[in-house]
Amino acid sequence: MDLGELQLLMARTYGERDAARGLPATVAWLAEEVGELAQAVRKGTRQQQATELADVLAWLASLANQLGIDLDDAVARYAGGCPKCGGTPCAC
Amino acid sequence: MDLGELQLLMARTYGERDAARGLPATVAWLAEEVGELAQAVRKGTRQQQATELADVLAWLASLANQLGIDLDDAVARYAGGCPKCGGTPCAC
Repeated sequence: MDLGELQLLMARTYGERDAARGLPATVAWLAEEVGELAQAVRKGTRQQQATELADVLAWLASLANQLGIDLDDAVARYAGGCPKCGGTPCAC
Repeated sequence: MDLGELQLLMARTYGERDAARGLPATVAWLAEEVGELAQAVRKGTRQQQATELADVLAWLASLANQLGIDLDDAVARYAGGCPKCGGTPCAC
């Protein structure tokens, strides 16, 4: 799945609810999901870790949708290697 | 860019350093980046928001690499709509 497909999927599935919820509540949900991911990394199963990674990614895509930002465009800053030093591998 | 390409790009750019840093430090960095994203959503420019979205996504991909988890497989749980109710749109 590419990032554009993911954003479209999130818009179809959660777009209306996201818009009604608003940005601060979406940031709060994202933070909650990051907490669940942190716990899964520490003591979860591989399946729980995968689920929580997906949930954080889903909330990140929903947030990008609300901001009207294309994740693919945004992540292009990493396409040429480290955005700070330009290195692949990073030599910062 | 698809999720597999992003993970490969992160592995090439940061893989060695990620492995040396370890999981707890990577989770801490991810949390830091989520904080920067939250601030950018509240009072940042569109460019700052895009940068911080990309940084969170990059750290998420690095974390998935360290866990040996394929983000594309993980996010497939959303492919059929909401994983809880199965709806598109979600009817939870």
